[in-house]
Amino acid sequence: MATKQLANWAVHLSSSSLPPAVSTAAQRSLYNYIGCTIGGSHHPTVSKAHKALSPFFGPAQASLLGLSQKTDAQHACLLNGIASHVHDYDDTHLATIIHPTGPVASACLAYIEYASVPITGPELLTAIAAGIEASCKLGLAVWPAHYDIGWHITSTTGSIGAAIAVGKLLHLSQTQMAHAIGLAAVQVVGLREMFGSDTKSFHPGRAAQAGFVAAVMAGNGFTSSEQALEAKRGWANVVAGGGVPQLEKFIGELGRVWEVQRNAFKPFPCGIVCHPAIDGCIQLHKEMKEKGLQVDDVEAVKARVHPLVIELTSKRSPRDGLEGKFSVFHGCAVGLLYGKAGPAQYADEVVTSVEVVSLRDRCDAEADQSLEADEVIIEVTFRNGKQMTKHVEHAVGSLEVPMTDERLKEKFLDQCLPVLGNRTRQVSELCWTIGEAPDVAAIIQQL
Amino acid sequence: MATKQLANWAVHLSSSSLPPAVSTAAQRSLYNYIGCTIGGSHHPTVSKAHKALSPFFGPAQASLLGLSQKTDAQHACLLNGIASHVHDYDDTHLATIIHPTGPVASACLAYIEYASVPITGPELLTAIAAGIEASCKLGLAVWPAHYDIGWHITSTTGSIGAAIAVGKLLHLSQTQMAHAIGLAAVQVVGLREMFGSDTKSFHPGRAAQAGFVAAVMAGNGFTSSEQALEAKRGWANVVAGGGVPQLEKFIGELGRVWEVQRNAFKPFPCGIVCHPAIDGCIQLHKEMKEKGLQVDDVEAVKARVHPLVIELTSKRSPRDGLEGKFSVFHGCAVGLLYGKAGPAQYADEVVTSVEVVSLRDRCDAEADQSLEADEVIIEVTFRNGKQMTKHVEHAVGSLEVPMTDERLKEKFLDQCLPVLGNRTRQVSELCWTIGEAPDVAAIIQQL
Repeated sequence: MATKQLANWAVHLSSSSLPPAVSTAAQRSLYNYIGCTIGGSHHPTVSKAHKALSPFFGPAQASLLGLSQKTDAQHACLLNGIASHVHDYDDTHLATIIHPTGPVASACLAYIEYASVPITGPELLTAIAAGIEASCKLGLAVWPAHYDIGWHITSTTGSIGAAIAVGKLLHLSQTQMAHAIGLAAVQVVGLREMFGSDTKSFHPGRAAQAGFVAAVMAGNGFTSSEQALEAKRGWANVVAGGGVPQLEKFIGELGRVWEVQRNAFKPFPCGIVCHPAIDGCIQLHKEMKEKGLQVDDVEAVKARVHPLVIELTSKRSPRDGLEGKFSVFHGCAVGLLYGKAGPAQYADEVVTSVEVVSLRDRCDAEADQSLEADEVIIEVTFRNGKQMTKHVEHAVGSLEVPMTDERLKEKFLDQCLPVLGNRTRQVSELCWTIGEAPDVAAIIQQL
Repeated sequence: MATKQLANWAVHLSSSSLPPAVSTAAQRSLYNYIGCTIGGSHHPTVSKAHKALSPFFGPAQASLLGLSQKTDAQHACLLNGIASHVHDYDDTHLATIIHPTGPVASACLAYIEYASVPITGPELLTAIAAGIEASCKLGLAVWPAHYDIGWHITSTTGSIGAAIAVGKLLHLSQTQMAHAIGLAAVQVVGLREMFGSDTKSFHPGRAAQAGFVAAVMAGNGFTSSEQALEAKRGWANVVAGGGVPQLEKFIGELGRVWEVQRNAFKPFPCGIVCHPAIDGCIQLHKEMKEKGLQVDDVEAVKARVHPLVIELTSKRSPRDGLEGKFSVFHGCAVGLLYGKAGPAQYADEVVTSVEVVSLRDRCDAEADQSLEADEVIIEVTFRNGKQMTKHVEHAVGSLEVPMTDERLKEKFLDQCLPVLGNRTRQVSELCWTIGEAPDVAAIIQQL
């Protein structure tokens, strides 16, 4: 029943039935996605994929965000999807660590520019909400065994979410939507073994393209199974990795519990585990400034952190931006020095600058079993013996302390400025209200 | 080690090192593939996919076999791959029931027409042999758990085989080949739940395209893992479905035991289980003819068969061609009546013809536990009380009684005649020697 139930729910979801808070959450996810995708658009991983595949591009149908170029809609799905994930700075559905918007929004935006009729902002938000719900509910149904065995859950669920979202924009019938789910479900993309290589970002891109193709083919009468998810040899059982899928439970929650409202946004472009320490140091930066205290006078910084922080991010002397992302010490140092830890603070030249290295060498961290994953206690000792302490109970970007609209906008500007230059603020404003636009395609073409 | 070992073996395989028997086996597999693909080229499943995706086609780079049309190389992979499988008449690696040539050859042919330099027949056969070996060895490594859990093993291994084959044509370095394997390994396509729908044939098509894209991207420096197959969270462990992958054993056999020589060809376009009964009836047809006996005088035909035949193909009164494929009685009737059971004998109008129905109603089958899967005993009783018996120990198309070159050619002609008309025989001759051609692209353009 799960396949038909999901298809039925998705087909009948309308912008008028979408709770306002859900619509706002979808808008925030979309806005964050656009910033990440424009921010990632010039990354070498994207450029390599672009160069490799350009001989096969079809008609110029859909924009590559951040690049003044269009490709056919399928390749736009793929390349925008890669760009959205390439800085590991996209959204996170914390319960499953799915990054749900990349596959779903990449597929939607590509379709909207290709479509022959204008699609409105509310229609787009409804499609995105449907796609995110589908991805996350399916992720919950196979969590945690599916991820544990080695699947990259963002893309394995993302192809189905993307199919649902494009299927809505295409106004598929319920049967066609079920076939689209099936066509997406047979394209299981993404292995965790690829983390650390270009292929990691290929996953959400390919998922976007797979979902797009699934919806378009189903719309043309290409048939699949209508029990694709729940059948004995269907998606859930095959990919559950030895776990028992809980499809009924989570598909049954559709429309009652909204996962898009549990979608979180990274404030810093590095592993989520060191976010509490960075958050604490940024707060200390402000307090020191208010008190007229200088970083030069700091003798030592000591962070008591959740043990995973030490396990995953204790690179003592990072040599470039990528290594910096795996150094909680670096995060603390730039937070305290600049009151910021955006992409600019992870540039190679910042990671190796004398000023940063000097403070970083005075930063230390210690595992504390009693702390939660989003908690930290930081002690700063000054040369004169004075001390300051900061206890962060929930880091910014957690569900308890979500990114404010202002912080989201700041993040967007930080990501897009190197790409868009003086158009950045204007584009940000456009994207912030894209969910109200009468014709979304007109906006996408400006990205 | 398995990933690097496979990459290394594939990169160093050359046409001069290919044993002649292997080269012949690859040529036979390719020839059979071309016949199946041309024969399937006008099937509604192919037409629907073509129509759905045509808005995204790129430059006309590669031919759709059997259609006077080219698409970009990626879509040629997909559409030819679908056509190759759509009649369930393609080759079978009996040890894994992989249909290996569809994904591999679809990707190779698409690349060859796109390539800027001419590719020779021996180069093509070498690439195809490498791809088939890769697919089948990987299939053996995860067999049977992988198939049992629900994966369509043809496509899940086919993407990697296709990547290897195109990687050879692209002359990838060993490292690039390892990355191509990884890029293909993360695209796990195909669930058995789709059997009976259009999506079943989508699987080998999408696998061809996935492998093609993987090789092309790796050739442009897109990175992956070099332990994609054997890592803890790599392909084999993730898709093994609870089994313990035997990568070392089977990858270690590369170049010593050739799977392409174990590739079999279906003599009849229906499930392999009823082939012994059909084979026996065709032999009886010839003997009756020699003895001047008439089908009208047959009172009853009784086949003692392996129990699976009853389980899978005991449709008593099939109403059309598709149902006819699941009726051992129909297979017996046309075999005895016409001495043939090709695509024409599974046309709707033949399945419902008075002559066939009349004889079919006189055919019966009975499970016999003592028989092998490729064995049958048939008793024909005539109205005058006389009897004839035929014991087939190994059906034609088995490894013991492989399809002869003549039977393969006959199959090719049967498949292609409705598509190619009076060009059929000439095309057959061209394809039979395609492995010796100085420029394969020149031949493909005539298909």
